[in-house]
Amino acid sequence: MKYHKVVFQPGNVLVEAADGSKLKEVMNEAGLEFDFLCGGQGTCGKCRVKVSEGLTTPVTREQEILQVKELDEGIRLACLTAVHNDLIVELPNQNKLKHNILIAASERTSKIEPLLLKVPIEVDKPSRETQSSDWRRLIESLVRQGYKESELETTVSILRQMPDVIRGANNRITAVMYQSKVAGIEPQDSAKSMLGMAFDIGTTTIVGYLLDLYTGKELSVVSTLNPQTAFGADVISRLTFASHEENGLTKLQRAVVGAINKLIDEAAQKVSVLRNDIYAISIAANTCMHHIFLGINPQSIAVSPYVPALSEPLALDASELEISINQAGKVFMLPNIAGFVGADTVAVLLTTELDQSEDIKLVIDIGTNGEIALGSREKIVACSAAAGPAFEGAQISSGMRGAAGAIDHVYYRDKLEYSVIGGGKPLGICGSALLDAVAGLVELGILNKRGKILAFDQLTNPAAQRFKENLIQFEGQGAFLLAEAGITGHGRPIMITQSDIRELQMAKGAMAAGVRVLMETYGIQAQDIKEVLLAGAFGNYLNPHSACVIGLIPPELESKIQMIGNAAGTGSKLALLSSSEFRRTKDIAEAVKFVELGSYPRFNSIFGECTYFKIQ
Amino acid sequence: MKYHKVVFQPGNVLVEAADGSKLKEVMNEAGLEFDFLCGGQGTCGKCRVKVSEGLTTPVTREQEILQVKELDEGIRLACLTAVHNDLIVELPNQNKLKHNILIAASERTSKIEPLLLKVPIEVDKPSRETQSSDWRRLIESLVRQGYKESELETTVSILRQMPDVIRGANNRITAVMYQSKVAGIEPQDSAKSMLGMAFDIGTTTIVGYLLDLYTGKELSVVSTLNPQTAFGADVISRLTFASHEENGLTKLQRAVVGAINKLIDEAAQKVSVLRNDIYAISIAANTCMHHIFLGINPQSIAVSPYVPALSEPLALDASELEISINQAGKVFMLPNIAGFVGADTVAVLLTTELDQSEDIKLVIDIGTNGEIALGSREKIVACSAAAGPAFEGAQISSGMRGAAGAIDHVYYRDKLEYSVIGGGKPLGICGSALLDAVAGLVELGILNKRGKILAFDQLTNPAAQRFKENLIQFEGQGAFLLAEAGITGHGRPIMITQSDIRELQMAKGAMAAGVRVLMETYGIQAQDIKEVLLAGAFGNYLNPHSACVIGLIPPELESKIQMIGNAAGTGSKLALLSSSEFRRTKDIAEAVKFVELGSYPRFNSIFGECTYFKIQ
Repeated sequence: MKYHKVVFQPGNVLVEAADGSKLKEVMNEAGLEFDFLCGGQGTCGKCRVKVSEGLTTPVTREQEILQVKELDEGIRLACLTAVHNDLIVELPNQNKLKHNILIAASERTSKIEPLLLKVPIEVDKPSRETQSSDWRRLIESLVRQGYKESELETTVSILRQMPDVIRGANNRITAVMYQSKVAGIEPQDSAKSMLGMAFDIGTTTIVGYLLDLYTGKELSVVSTLNPQTAFGADVISRLTFASHEENGLTKLQRAVVGAINKLIDEAAQKVSVLRNDIYAISIAANTCMHHIFLGINPQSIAVSPYVPALSEPLALDASELEISINQAGKVFMLPNIAGFVGADTVAVLLTTELDQSEDIKLVIDIGTNGEIALGSREKIVACSAAAGPAFEGAQISSGMRGAAGAIDHVYYRDKLEYSVIGGGKPLGICGSALLDAVAGLVELGILNKRGKILAFDQLTNPAAQRFKENLIQFEGQGAFLLAEAGITGHGRPIMITQSDIRELQMAKGAMAAGVRVLMETYGIQAQDIKEVLLAGAFGNYLNPHSACVIGLIPPELESKIQMIGNAAGTGSKLALLSSSEFRRTKDIAEAVKFVELGSYPRFNSIFGECTYFKIQ
Repeated sequence: MKYHKVVFQPGNVLVEAADGSKLKEVMNEAGLEFDFLCGGQGTCGKCRVKVSEGLTTPVTREQEILQVKELDEGIRLACLTAVHNDLIVELPNQNKLKHNILIAASERTSKIEPLLLKVPIEVDKPSRETQSSDWRRLIESLVRQGYKESELETTVSILRQMPDVIRGANNRITAVMYQSKVAGIEPQDSAKSMLGMAFDIGTTTIVGYLLDLYTGKELSVVSTLNPQTAFGADVISRLTFASHEENGLTKLQRAVVGAINKLIDEAAQKVSVLRNDIYAISIAANTCMHHIFLGINPQSIAVSPYVPALSEPLALDASELEISINQAGKVFMLPNIAGFVGADTVAVLLTTELDQSEDIKLVIDIGTNGEIALGSREKIVACSAAAGPAFEGAQISSGMRGAAGAIDHVYYRDKLEYSVIGGGKPLGICGSALLDAVAGLVELGILNKRGKILAFDQLTNPAAQRFKENLIQFEGQGAFLLAEAGITGHGRPIMITQSDIRELQMAKGAMAAGVRVLMETYGIQAQDIKEVLLAGAFGNYLNPHSACVIGLIPPELESKIQMIGNAAGTGSKLALLSSSEFRRTKDIAEAVKFVELGSYPRFNSIFGECTYFKIQ
């Protein structure tokens, strides 16, 4: 099947859509909530969207409902318009657009070597003379297929099914093999289909990719908010909940397992396959999410020395974890590196192949805890920088998540301009806008090196004159007004306060110090770095120039920045499709030297320096 | 601890009793049901038994309750008398003596090499620098103990316990290892105690031996009737129930698992240890009992070609089978040979070490299906002979099990004499008495070669004259009266009819034909056999001379017969105490060449000949 790239604006949400799929389905896939008043029957005509780039031919019903002028402008009905080439689609103003989830992932492929194999075999008929047992004859069939008898094993549950399956299918069966273990037996030759799902369990969102394990083809993509958010928004609050609430760990685990099972159902239904055809899932997650998914108390991550309970890769029985796939199914857990550098980072490193790169690359996943890795095939160092929640809009006076109503980008043109996620009146600013806004203040000389907002009469840059009216006082501090009360959705002004800038300085200082320490540890300068790869949602939405201006990323690397999208999801897919890639995750996790910033010499002074701005 | 042999009469029940144990406990252990009206408090004085051999000194309470004459005769109270040397104890007439279970087993010891090991380790403290996970540090501790890192594995359930166990015990833990698998982790150094239980699951009875896995010492012996008897008395009716009744297999499995769990409880309570200290159980059983215990449909055993579903030895998680021992516990299943030559026979062969014997030995376990093995370290052949239920007293006009009221032995002296199990009036005859009775008829020339009861005037042996009155007619056939109606417990005569003799001829013919076929297959004559080992309950109670006279066992081997008691139980114990003995069961099962009697050339004529008697 062919796939096309569909970008939804505003919000820059990129989705790979199967040829012929309806925009409505693609929007669901992207997690873009949207009201289809008639349920998507093509009757109400309310799901107008604008196709601003790419070709679509209106269907009859669209021609009946829409005016000629609307049709000419590219207005279409999302429930009727099918995707047949790459599109950019503008969504109307609406508040329903709840969250942007990064689905598109950077591309990297690998040889397909499924972790499980289906082996059709013909078991010999039983004989009175030899009295060979069913299991013995099954072993002999597998030995004929090249398996080593001494290594073959199975479970009681398989042994219980075996006599009936063998006899019911007149001795022709299919063994589902995980290495030398008979994980399942099925009647007849069932080898034609074997599906798997790769998951990226984030603190906020969970994305799942349904894959054909033979061809590697992606059949559907599904996503949901992590239902654990009901128990705490971030990793620290989840750790606290797991350790201190009664049955906290169980509640969190059930929530994530329930969400995974729902996504499995949804992904299977979307392409009309059976859950039972799914034999394997892979899990990339941060260390805390990883532990909770397994039902392992993550408390050790929360207290010094912040070590995980478990770092090794695992292959587990899906049934043991109550994952509703084929009863022979396995769950493959990618390994962790440290308490705050988890399997999601390992997945990113697998995707970016730092372990085989000739050039030194810097990989950054920015979040409340930013994971940073620096390296090449020579060596890899990594750290976790406690940036705090500023990049996610928390602790910021007008801050909010990157959801509908959030200003996501700010432009200092003739006057101040900005874009709002979902269009409509702004409600606040998200992290990417905070970066843009502060970067502009730095470039205009409105901030000094220490981040202080200067008084208007202290400004020397003529370009700053234009923004005189934006420079205000708020609660006795300097502040920079982005949107007046009269034009916002809630009637309150949206601004950047001096305190907000302090928060951002802490956040970017932590990230930049992490990068600096890794470079020192590695023994290189910024110019030795050939590529900077920004992974994850925030990395995909931020303006790289802004990130460099504020010093989040060393400015000399601006031209080397690449956004690699949901590289953790891609890594999870790679591990699921290839046993050698899965094994490689262990090598990667072991190869990475973890650098503990808190105990790095002079870290506090490096961090202090990194909170400053570079003023031209 | 010292052990003494206690033989209870009538019934010849041999028990090995720990020094100092009360007769009451020993009788419980032997499965001898007996009323202790005051609950064994030493108050009612009703539990009088007679110590006919061996020394006991009456305690004060016995001196108060019993008369001097009684004390002199050896009368004692079972609830008060302790065992301090070998004893023969005569039980009073009573109907409560329900069943004799063979508990004493032939002696063979082996080097102790527990299947599971407890390894006390000190896990390194976590460090901020390395961020080594709990599991990684645990692995490193085990590697220091000589384990190979690449082979180490564990379960989710252990990983879930691990963080709290390690921290709760300040890094000092004990790993319970099964090969390279961490099966359990316990706080502190818990290596001092590790118990196991060896089971012999028979169709009728289940016997369990609680053993110290470090010293091999037997701590207690428990037994019970197999509760599956409620669903069918013999293997065939169980097979039918499992296959054809709704949830039949589940019902049978729950019954046996429930019985095993009760025995575990009982055995632990007897010696005041915790169920939680039991880490392993071993199971020897016939193939049908083996499959049912595992919840595997045994139907294939019931229909041609009668193959088992499973013959290999297994090591399973006790929790998976709902066996209530330590959660790290394992269940070791001895392997089967064929549908009707099961793990119990393998256990017998392990005990008798046929696989290492320089001499050729014949091992016979007589039952509804008699298992016969013949061999030496050169080779072993085995078969199952469908003897039918005659040896168990079924299908015999006056037949009954070897329970209270059964005539168990018959003596042709001046007049006919017999012994009755439990004393009292006779109610019927059990298999061993049937053998004696018929053997006497053969020796007296009362039967001809074909087994016909001759008329009195046809008898030529003067010794037969004495039994003129025993020769009666019953329902138009000849019959031999053992007990007149007036002296039996139910007021009906007890006799051997012509039909009973025919039944016995079928049964002994099947066994003898099995022995003949094995000798032919092996290429030897009876005189080449150096020992005949009779295993199991029936083999222990029968009179070897009678067995030879009727031709159940070749008469030339009479002097070579040895009773080896519950050799299946002993084999189960050996396998539990030594990993190399457990591995050896696989070699034995594979080494044995199964001979299918039904498809052996000329089997019918051999069987026909074997139903005859040899008349001097």
